[in-house]
Formats: sequence, structure tokens, C-alpha cells
Amino acid sequence: MRDVFHEQLDAVFDDLTAICGQVEVAVRRATEALLSGDAAVAEQVITDDAEIDQARERVEESAFQLLSLQQPVAGDLRVIIAALRMVTELERMGDLSVHVAKIARLRVPNVAVPEGINETMTKMAETAEDMVRRVGQIIRHRDVSAAIELGRDDEVMDQLRRHSFTQLLGDDWAHGVEAAVDVALLGRYYERIADHAVSIANRVVFVVTGEKPHRGEV
Amino acid sequence: MRDVFHEQLDAVFDDLTAICGQVEVAVRRATEALLSGDAAVAEQVITDDAEIDQARERVEESAFQLLSLQQPVAGDLRVIIAALRMVTELERMGDLSVHVAKIARLRVPNVAVPEGINETMTKMAETAEDMVRRVGQIIRHRDVSAAIELGRDDEVMDQLRRHSFTQLLGDDWAHGVEAAVDVALLGRYYERIADHAVSIANRVVFVVTGEKPHRGEV
Repeated sequence: MRDVFHEQLDAVFDDLTAICGQVEVAVRRATEALLSGDAAVAEQVITDDAEIDQARERVEESAFQLLSLQQPVAGDLRVIIAALRMVTELERMGDLSVHVAKIARLRVPNVAVPEGINETMTKMAETAEDMVRRVGQIIRHRDVSAAIELGRDDEVMDQLRRHSFTQLLGDDWAHGVEAAVDVALLGRYYERIADHAVSIANRVVFVVTGEKPHRGEV
Repeated sequence: MRDVFHEQLDAVFDDLTAICGQVEVAVRRATEALLSGDAAVAEQVITDDAEIDQARERVEESAFQLLSLQQPVAGDLRVIIAALRMVTELERMGDLSVHVAKIARLRVPNVAVPEGINETMTKMAETAEDMVRRVGQIIRHRDVSAAIELGRDDEVMDQLRRHSFTQLLGDDWAHGVEAAVDVALLGRYYERIADHAVSIANRVVFVVTGEKPHRGEV
């Protein structure tokens, strides 16, 4: 049987997994709103973000309680700090989904993403959502090998982003400045969601092994 | 005389002040590179960012030592966690300066920011730099009233960003898609630098008073 400290720590990680599930829903709905121009779905992402913020506060309080009452040292201490950082990143991923939803809402009844770049943007959105889904599993199962794999797949997102710039800045871009600016910012938001997913995966590696997968990443 | 714990805590805050000074230089040079198209200055911002990363690691180690050896509870514990979060944000501000410098470098020998929007972009850059400079003083002097004032001035940055979009998306925008995309992303980077400055100022308020200036900000 695990001691009280490690039981409470497990509860914190269960909460992180649950919040990651909320973020996954936010990313999926934001993309749905973006690609369909559905104002109600965009609105829901924006409203529901408050729940992610509240969940973050609850996890922070639990982590503070653990630190304060159990006085962990060395490895255990670093694990709790890592959990605090993970929840901050999850909240940011929620905020970034809100940014996507707000661009979708701004263009209703139109769709922000024009036909020509729809495929690239859909792939970016799917990649981001997939990375969030996987990082939820990585947190849940403390899965180091899946975490390391996620770090490698970040390159896919980078390639998609570069490709979107090639399309935007090509001579045959026919959708004007507004759509280009939207697509550039949307690409930035999805890329940041992916960055945070990788960063959280790296923190899980650190939590399990005590080693940082990349210098300065944890 | 202060006890060992509080002396070490002061040293951590001195380090945060110093890093904020490095970030201020990074923001200033990135802007200089951006507005002048000077590749060497852009290069320097990108190279020097490693020093900010290293400084962050040193502060994190000091904070961990403090947590582990001194076993602070309640308020002192939260102050160290706040310091850890502040240094993470300072490092992000350095990264954002690198993003600005990279856009500058990409357009050399040209200048990324076209004439027509130069004034707005210069104001955004100056506002960001001013906020970083002020937050350095706020950390150094634990200045609550200056911190609260900084939070209010964030509205200036929001207005500038909205104005830049009005210019970009106006019928008389004559600088094409590439410049528009650059300006939109640059605006995002300066806005995020300002956001982090406000967030750090809010953490200083929390460190000094134990109260969060805005719900969910600390």
C-alpha cells in the first residue's frame, strides 16, 4: 500500500489527466467552430474555459497542501513542482483554444479558413488535438516511451506550419490579407498547443525517471 | 538582521531582477534589429538568449535548495513558488524577443515593418520595453503600487494591437500579405511580453501582500 503522500500525489495526477481531457474537448470544439463557422460552438469553448481555470486552481491548492503538510524533499519535491508547471501549461492550452474560438466567432457567418489552405489548417488542428489526447494518456500512465515519441512528432507540426507560410506567401494566394493574418495567428496558436503538449510530456519523463529529456525543458 | 531563509530568498529576488534586466536588453535589441534591419543585432539577441536560459536554471536550483533545505510552509512556501513562476515567465519573454529578432533576420536586407505601420509598431515595442523595465524595478523594490499601475497600463498595449489590426485590414493597406503577416505576429509577440510583465507584477503584489490582485492571476 502506498503512503498518504503518494496517494495524494496520485490524486493530483488524476486531476491533471482530467484537466487534459477538458483541454482536449476545448481544442476539438474550437477547431469545429473554426472549420464550420458555428458561433454557438465557439461561444461554448469561450464560456467553458472558466471551468479549466477553476480546475487549475483546485490542483494548485492540492499541490500547496501537499508541499506544506508533507514537506517533501528532493525527488518528491520536484515532482510536485512539475505538477504545478503542468497545470499552468494545461491552462494555457485552454486559453489558446479560446483564441482559436474567438477568431472563428469574429468571422461568423463566414469561415476564417479559406478553401485553399483548409487542408493544411485541418491537419494542424488534428495534430494538435492528437497530441493533447496522447499527452493525457501519458500523464495517466506515466508513459515515458510515449512521451519521448510525442517529442519527436512535434516536427510534424513544425512542417505543417512552414507549409502554411509557403501557401500564404505564395504568388497564387488569392484570399487577401485578412485570411492570411487569421491563418498565421491560428497556426501560431495550434503550434503553441503542440509545444505545451511536448513540454508536459517532457515533465512526465522527468517525474518518472528524474532525468530531463532535453536540457532546459523541465 | 534577517534569518538565513529570508537572506537566501532576497538573493533569489536579486537574481530575478538581474534576469529581468537581461530580458529588457533582449527586447530593446530585438526592436532595434526589427526597425533597422540589422542582422548582427538580431543574431546577438538569438545567441544571448542562452544566457537567460542558464540564469533561469540557476534561479530554479536556488529555489529548490531553499524549498528542500529550509522546508518553508504557508506564506514563505507560496513566495518561493511565485519566484519559480516569475523566472519561467522571464524566460518566455526572452524567447518572445528571439521570435521578434528572427522575423527581423528573415527580412534582411529589408525591414519587416513597412512605413505605414512603423509608428504603431514602434509604440508597441516601446510599450513592451517600458513594461519590462518597470517590472524589473517592481521586483527589485517589491513595489505594490507600481505593480498595480502596470496592470492598468496593459490596456495601452491592447489598444495599440487593435489599432494595428485596423491598419492591416483597412482598404488602404498597400504592403501586401507578407508584411501583414509579419506585423500580426510581431504584435502578438509584443502583446505576450506585456502580458507576462503584468503577470509578474501581479505575482509581486501577491508576494508582498498575500493577496491576488485579480482572481486566477497568480
